[in-house]
Amino acid sequence: MKLVSFAASDSRPGYGAIKDGGVVDLSRRFGERAPTLRTLLASGALAGAAGIAADAKPDLPLEGLTFAPVIPDPDKIICVGLNYRDHVAETAKTVTEKPALFARFAGSQIGHLQPLVKPAVSDAFDYEGELAVVIGKQGRHIPAERALEYVAGYSCYNEGTVRDWQVHTSQYLAGKTFAGTGAFGPWLVTTDEIPDPSRLTLETRLNGQVVQHTTTDLMITSVPEQIAYISTILPLLPGDVIVTGTPGGVGAKRNPPLFMRPGDVAEVEISGIGVLRNPVAAEVP
Amino acid sequence: MKLVSFAASDSRPGYGAIKDGGVVDLSRRFGERAPTLRTLLASGALAGAAGIAADAKPDLPLEGLTFAPVIPDPDKIICVGLNYRDHVAETAKTVTEKPALFARFAGSQIGHLQPLVKPAVSDAFDYEGELAVVIGKQGRHIPAERALEYVAGYSCYNEGTVRDWQVHTSQYLAGKTFAGTGAFGPWLVTTDEIPDPSRLTLETRLNGQVVQHTTTDLMITSVPEQIAYISTILPLLPGDVIVTGTPGGVGAKRNPPLFMRPGDVAEVEISGIGVLRNPVAAEVP
Repeated sequence: MKLVSFAASDSRPGYGAIKDGGVVDLSRRFGERAPTLRTLLASGALAGAAGIAADAKPDLPLEGLTFAPVIPDPDKIICVGLNYRDHVAETAKTVTEKPALFARFAGSQIGHLQPLVKPAVSDAFDYEGELAVVIGKQGRHIPAERALEYVAGYSCYNEGTVRDWQVHTSQYLAGKTFAGTGAFGPWLVTTDEIPDPSRLTLETRLNGQVVQHTTTDLMITSVPEQIAYISTILPLLPGDVIVTGTPGGVGAKRNPPLFMRPGDVAEVEISGIGVLRNPVAAEVP
Repeated sequence: MKLVSFAASDSRPGYGAIKDGGVVDLSRRFGERAPTLRTLLASGALAGAAGIAADAKPDLPLEGLTFAPVIPDPDKIICVGLNYRDHVAETAKTVTEKPALFARFAGSQIGHLQPLVKPAVSDAFDYEGELAVVIGKQGRHIPAERALEYVAGYSCYNEGTVRDWQVHTSQYLAGKTFAGTGAFGPWLVTTDEIPDPSRLTLETRLNGQVVQHTTTDLMITSVPEQIAYISTILPLLPGDVIVTGTPGGVGAKRNPPLFMRPGDVAEVEISGIGVLRNPVAAEVP
């Protein structure tokens, strides 16, 4: 099942299942029981939602939908840095035994087709195509062998990074959470369609040019190992997002550097999920 | 005014104003209009709350209250690292022009008198006494000269840190967001009582022994400059928490190291605010 979050016409946050080129509006059917995709996951109603979608006709065309971030309001977004060897090499860092975790705040997120916002204070706005994991049920101290049971599904993420602010200090957060820089979509693909997240192909394109290309088996810390590590620290909750790292080819490490500028179009495509596409716009002061 | 968040007897999250050694339960009076302290701030009802508290008698004794983190559910918690020269020196780091920002997740927080939880995976559980700033109104690109207008008030924070996990990689997050490690309280003191956050004295004690002592004028990046920097990145929202950095004296840099162990009592006292006191307990698997 593919689940999409969108801005409903009555301005409430909506979500639904994609079917026959349209959207079955699940938020309208669940109402107060599950007003958002996050609350749907938390209520354990994914199977019920699939049943409803199977029996329903689309309520809305996919065309013209105002996409929201797949999970607009996660309790936490945890990003994994330096998780592909070619990216570690291009940044002249060394591989660490444990994953490098940093955060992004929900207020930095945008949906599919929404503009990535180049901040006024920087011209070093970089792309980072990544696989996003959405947690489906609460867990702490989850063993890696059972970790995939805690996953609701997968999506694409463009972890837009303001490179000069990222290196103001040793800590990445400042460059990683500007408003309008975290593109998350186009939709969530549930685990029945993607049983193994290590068998995917990821490609990032800027204005049609392929700038990153990898297979997800090349992650240094696998998705199950990420879940085990993070859940040792604190409970993972339904709707939590793990952004699993970017491969080599980032703009800052090219010669000459290749940054995103207003008017550009950035795409992240992952096999079995689809294409996350975002135009780039300048920050409006 | 001193505002406290607590667990109400009917298990809803409550908040109220401290008066005559008791608590005026504001959450009961505001009801659905402002069910939490965060939503009270967001609704701009601080003055109204003060008026209610002035006319009311305490509903609850302060003694025996189950304290919650001052803001249990902030949209974001932003921590500033290496913000006092004596702490920069003891860690053998260098002062950076910009503040080092990292995150902590809301799920890591506890209230006054609740146990700080030493994780099972570590014996290097360290204290960090800090001044916490709570944002009172939304703002982006806030100039430093006007930054204090965006503050609702101040509290104490013990930014409990799992040192070995903090240095698994270059990024601090893993050691900074374990469940039960962020003590936040005892209450929020509004800006009418603290017009200038650079004139406070902060002291951390472990089992009564003074382990950190500073005045807040010694911050490298001042509170107004922190607000200006962070709000360049993304909007600050009512209830957001900025944890403004710890002075020298942390346990990991002592000889021999001094870590928090089950049975210990950690205190953070800030002039004009009060004492945040937490026992230390072992994680229950």
